[in-house]
Amino acid sequence: MRILSGIQPSGTLHIGNYFGMMKPAIELQERGEAYYFIADYHSMTSLFDPEQRRQNTLGVALDFLACGLDPKRSVFWRQSDVAEVTELTWIIGTLTPMGLLERAHSYKDKTARGISPNFGLFAYPVLMAADILLFDSNLVPVGRDQKQHVEMTRDIAIKFNQAYGETLVVPEPEIRDETAIVPGLDGQKMSKSYGNTVEIFGDEKAIRKKIMGIKMDSRTPAEPKPNADQNIAIQLLKLVAPAEVARETEERLRAGGLGYGDLKKALFEHYWSFFAPARAKRAELAANLDYVNGVLRDGAERARATATVVLERARRACGLA
Amino acid sequence: MRILSGIQPSGTLHIGNYFGMMKPAIELQERGEAYYFIADYHSMTSLFDPEQRRQNTLGVALDFLACGLDPKRSVFWRQSDVAEVTELTWIIGTLTPMGLLERAHSYKDKTARGISPNFGLFAYPVLMAADILLFDSNLVPVGRDQKQHVEMTRDIAIKFNQAYGETLVVPEPEIRDETAIVPGLDGQKMSKSYGNTVEIFGDEKAIRKKIMGIKMDSRTPAEPKPNADQNIAIQLLKLVAPAEVARETEERLRAGGLGYGDLKKALFEHYWSFFAPARAKRAELAANLDYVNGVLRDGAERARATATVVLERARRACGLA
Repeated sequence: MRILSGIQPSGTLHIGNYFGMMKPAIELQERGEAYYFIADYHSMTSLFDPEQRRQNTLGVALDFLACGLDPKRSVFWRQSDVAEVTELTWIIGTLTPMGLLERAHSYKDKTARGISPNFGLFAYPVLMAADILLFDSNLVPVGRDQKQHVEMTRDIAIKFNQAYGETLVVPEPEIRDETAIVPGLDGQKMSKSYGNTVEIFGDEKAIRKKIMGIKMDSRTPAEPKPNADQNIAIQLLKLVAPAEVARETEERLRAGGLGYGDLKKALFEHYWSFFAPARAKRAELAANLDYVNGVLRDGAERARATATVVLERARRACGLA
Repeated sequence: MRILSGIQPSGTLHIGNYFGMMKPAIELQERGEAYYFIADYHSMTSLFDPEQRRQNTLGVALDFLACGLDPKRSVFWRQSDVAEVTELTWIIGTLTPMGLLERAHSYKDKTARGISPNFGLFAYPVLMAADILLFDSNLVPVGRDQKQHVEMTRDIAIKFNQAYGETLVVPEPEIRDETAIVPGLDGQKMSKSYGNTVEIFGDEKAIRKKIMGIKMDSRTPAEPKPNADQNIAIQLLKLVAPAEVARETEERLRAGGLGYGDLKKALFEHYWSFFAPARAKRAELAANLDYVNGVLRDGAERARATATVVLERARRACGLA
């Protein structure tokens, strides 16, 4: 089974990204042949700073490798290193009804948020479909908000197969468990746009300050807190501390006797040690960019080996070859 | 100066295509470095028969080579053999405002004619811009109906250069002289959709029958015809007969004494001998498809040598490399 996932090079990742998307992606490496790419073509629809694009792309490569993406087991590449995807985009685009794209949520949402409506933004789902179809992907793990894109990909693959004969593999979405939504420091969903994030690889002092700054109520340490499970620090602690420790701390908070300051200190310490191995690994990788670039180059070669077979099949089917 | 032109592989060509487009294109080889490609990617937006696409592509290659396209002097290739154009399509698409494409006449016209609105049809001008920009083209000879596409290409190139620094050459359109519009057998503009065509490489009997069937008025041979210059057969004769012969024939028709039957016979004979050298050349090429495929392969290699330089420049500018 081939599992495909695209990673947005959208800057510094936070622990919401980690638990919501990276960790599941890294665990999926056990279940099949993982094909993961850094979506730098996609980034062009909303980021127009070339240097930023280069930095983000490298940064997200470091992040994923540091957090456990295993380039021996998985195929990991930079999207634009396998330009074949743009050819498949054109090919399948000629069978994509305009109505399908006009109904895409992502385009409507982005333009509603004030991003100027460029053609790339509108064409985004076609490139995404080509990303998936170019590798005969069987499974595409996505958040609920991305489900429509996999459905569009299925529609496009089916249309192509109807027009030109059985050629493209029709993929299945796998909706990620939404219980993994991580609360931000203000209690809303953790998201860069809310400014409530804890970075995975943040600076020690800065993160300590952020965590110590979580707003709590005015109850004294001694008071019991029957709603301890709804405390943001407890919720975050459950993600980064051993289960036993998190449970104990929650009990102590509920019973009374644990002050908020101590709780937040404990959260910081567990956050810091949880990511310590990844932090060390990332520093090592950052000092060895030749190795990282080699990994991406090697991944591109392996990805291309699959891509050229599928693309040639599509080209023959539609009479380009 | 580099001159770029795309040739639609849309089936059998008629003498309207020859005088309107092929002959000027072939003459332009004298004025600069001609880059001519067979637009098989474009054909995908409205033709969904793979075998037909293969045949049309080969057919139009034979037609152009037979009519004087010189593959030593010009670069002549099949569009899909230089897939780099689809990558540039994505890149420039992210800087193309949706409004620009929504105003495109060709999309409105085609959907108004009942072609189902697929994404490829909508994206057509972006691919066309990439066709032009990928080769640092200076001059793009077009019919008046295609002028908007070159203007859109200029807009896109300027936008790219503004966003990412001077990278793409901004091309100039050259509007083809519309006096070359060839009348069809019914007096309307010659066009496949009107069913009034004379094919360049038609079957002898079939074309003779078509020409002898041109409708004339009921005046007797002896009657003078003061409006001889408006006679369709005279107009066509002017294209295929030596100027002296055409003038003489027109004079005889005007003065009276030349019957319509004899006029049409003369038209057929001159049409037949005008295309005789090309007809012989085409038969020779059709018997030697290895040579023709070799010409296209060689053209693709030369086109790619230019394309990769421009594409790399664009990739660097926008931070993909």
